[in-house]
Amino acid sequence: MAQRILLAARPKGEPTPADFRLEDVELAEPSQGQVLLRVLYLSLDPYMRGRMSTAKSYAKPVEIGEVMEGGTVAQVIASRDPAYQAGDIVLAYAGWQTHALASPKQIVRKLDPTQAPVSTALGVYGMPGFTAWSGLREIGKPKAGETLVVAAASGAVGSVVGQIAKLHGARAVGIAGGPDKCAYVRDELGFDVAIDHRAPDFAGQLKQACPDGIDVYFENVGGAVWDAVWPLLNTYARVPLCGLIASYNDDGSNKGENDRLPALMRSVLTRSITLRGFIQSEFVRSYPEFLKEMGGWLRDGSMRYREDIVEGLASAPDAFIGLLKGRNFGKLLVHLGDPD
Amino acid sequence: MAQRILLAARPKGEPTPADFRLEDVELAEPSQGQVLLRVLYLSLDPYMRGRMSTAKSYAKPVEIGEVMEGGTVAQVIASRDPAYQAGDIVLAYAGWQTHALASPKQIVRKLDPTQAPVSTALGVYGMPGFTAWSGLREIGKPKAGETLVVAAASGAVGSVVGQIAKLHGARAVGIAGGPDKCAYVRDELGFDVAIDHRAPDFAGQLKQACPDGIDVYFENVGGAVWDAVWPLLNTYARVPLCGLIASYNDDGSNKGENDRLPALMRSVLTRSITLRGFIQSEFVRSYPEFLKEMGGWLRDGSMRYREDIVEGLASAPDAFIGLLKGRNFGKLLVHLGDPD
Repeated sequence: MAQRILLAARPKGEPTPADFRLEDVELAEPSQGQVLLRVLYLSLDPYMRGRMSTAKSYAKPVEIGEVMEGGTVAQVIASRDPAYQAGDIVLAYAGWQTHALASPKQIVRKLDPTQAPVSTALGVYGMPGFTAWSGLREIGKPKAGETLVVAAASGAVGSVVGQIAKLHGARAVGIAGGPDKCAYVRDELGFDVAIDHRAPDFAGQLKQACPDGIDVYFENVGGAVWDAVWPLLNTYARVPLCGLIASYNDDGSNKGENDRLPALMRSVLTRSITLRGFIQSEFVRSYPEFLKEMGGWLRDGSMRYREDIVEGLASAPDAFIGLLKGRNFGKLLVHLGDPD
Repeated sequence: MAQRILLAARPKGEPTPADFRLEDVELAEPSQGQVLLRVLYLSLDPYMRGRMSTAKSYAKPVEIGEVMEGGTVAQVIASRDPAYQAGDIVLAYAGWQTHALASPKQIVRKLDPTQAPVSTALGVYGMPGFTAWSGLREIGKPKAGETLVVAAASGAVGSVVGQIAKLHGARAVGIAGGPDKCAYVRDELGFDVAIDHRAPDFAGQLKQACPDGIDVYFENVGGAVWDAVWPLLNTYARVPLCGLIASYNDDGSNKGENDRLPALMRSVLTRSITLRGFIQSEFVRSYPEFLKEMGGWLRDGSMRYREDIVEGLASAPDAFIGLLKGRNFGKLLVHLGDPD
């Protein structure tokens, strides 16, 4: 028997457990060309909130009654594709389920457990790490002596962003939620400063931490952090924008406030700011180079990471709801089983 | 006797004639290292509204009682700098005055009247033309088959933007105010479509003119044009932003409206949009290449331009006030005299 989690309803605002449905299914046999996978780790990522919604985005939504999409590390348990054999460990888009009948196009690549722990293919050595690496390489371009700021700095993307900035000789200022995460960002990841966005004088602390302004702001949260960052951006500042988690649960209405759009446009003009949205897949041609450089950093210890692992598929909805509130501490993974 | 125009007061909203003061001054002799210039043409440009204000910008404001800044074409009438001789015609930052004692650093370059009419050094063959050329080269990058949109399309920058886009094989959609300007943009400049932004169904007309969406929007106006353009931007759209003339007279308050900033950030994210402010001086290293390429286009007739010339220094304030309202038709110049 296998289990899977379907999208039961489209959330209004914050997702709730009722928006998901866990169900049992019979394990099927692979047909010709298919591979039967047993999932070891399911990755939970902020972008999944977008797939639950019909709002215009860069990917089509998951339909009601469909299995929630997601990246996984899985082991092949039966194969009718000559490229894969039982026992292989692969990175695959298997979704929120314990087992999947996968076509070869759902499989990204085979993983070599002797190179790096396989779970890292969902984090620092996979999509979130590549988001950080490619966004800095193509857009952020931190230079020695410059100041970079990133939020969710203990998370899967932010932690890599700050460490790469340091490797380029830039000053890294991380924003995180609560004293434990801030201590980790500063003491274990080696950021120059860590600031708690829950502090009442957060904007003042950020200003103090950036006496020469901000040259690169790696935007993955939006909301109040962006409001504090924006006035500090220097001339020629670069803002790679890959996520807006603070607003993923918004319903889109912002009535009764000032319209700050004209003021933003004026800032972009008068300070020659670059604001650039991106999805890591745009830069996939440089993925092999990423694997090589990041692999080196992981092996020589210059890149550190932290995983927040929850147990069992049934835990996924709650863990995901917590992710959108910043409850996780490190790359959030659901552990479903160990390799044979 | 010489005349000059000073900033008399900082405008609140639209400038009025009372914000300027015309005064007579005695002609002075150049000291060692100085050059005495007689201005032939004064350029009037939207950026000058920024210099009248103390709002944070990329250049320091003109002080009350100082001569208004501005680019000019001028003739040397006396020189105590060996690099210049009486009779030379130069491009110089002489400001709003009939004569100026200039130091060599205020002089940009000597002009050769046999290469191009000297007035073009203030328009198509000068700063506005270079703004168009460099903004497209560095940021907009129109490709064959793409759709480019530009507003103020009969003006000094917009007219060049659309013609360069056509030279690159892109489709050019111009926005202008009124039927005469639209006819000029379409029939004389060769844009594919020209749309009157005063039409009641302007946004609908723009949408119809861009059936494949917008790949490059060269932003120099802001306001209602941006509101209509923004929903039509394609994935990977580029928005070089060099002016926001529609809001230069705003007082900064936008109370009672929705805050559209979060929606803009979501669009930038989900459509991988590049929004990039710039001032042409950032790209000055490629100025020689601009002169060469634009000079070729002017000589072979593939680049057309139009000048709107008003007579006499006293006309400058009214002409400038009209410029901010779109009253000019082509590059706005004040003619002060002819060369000897």
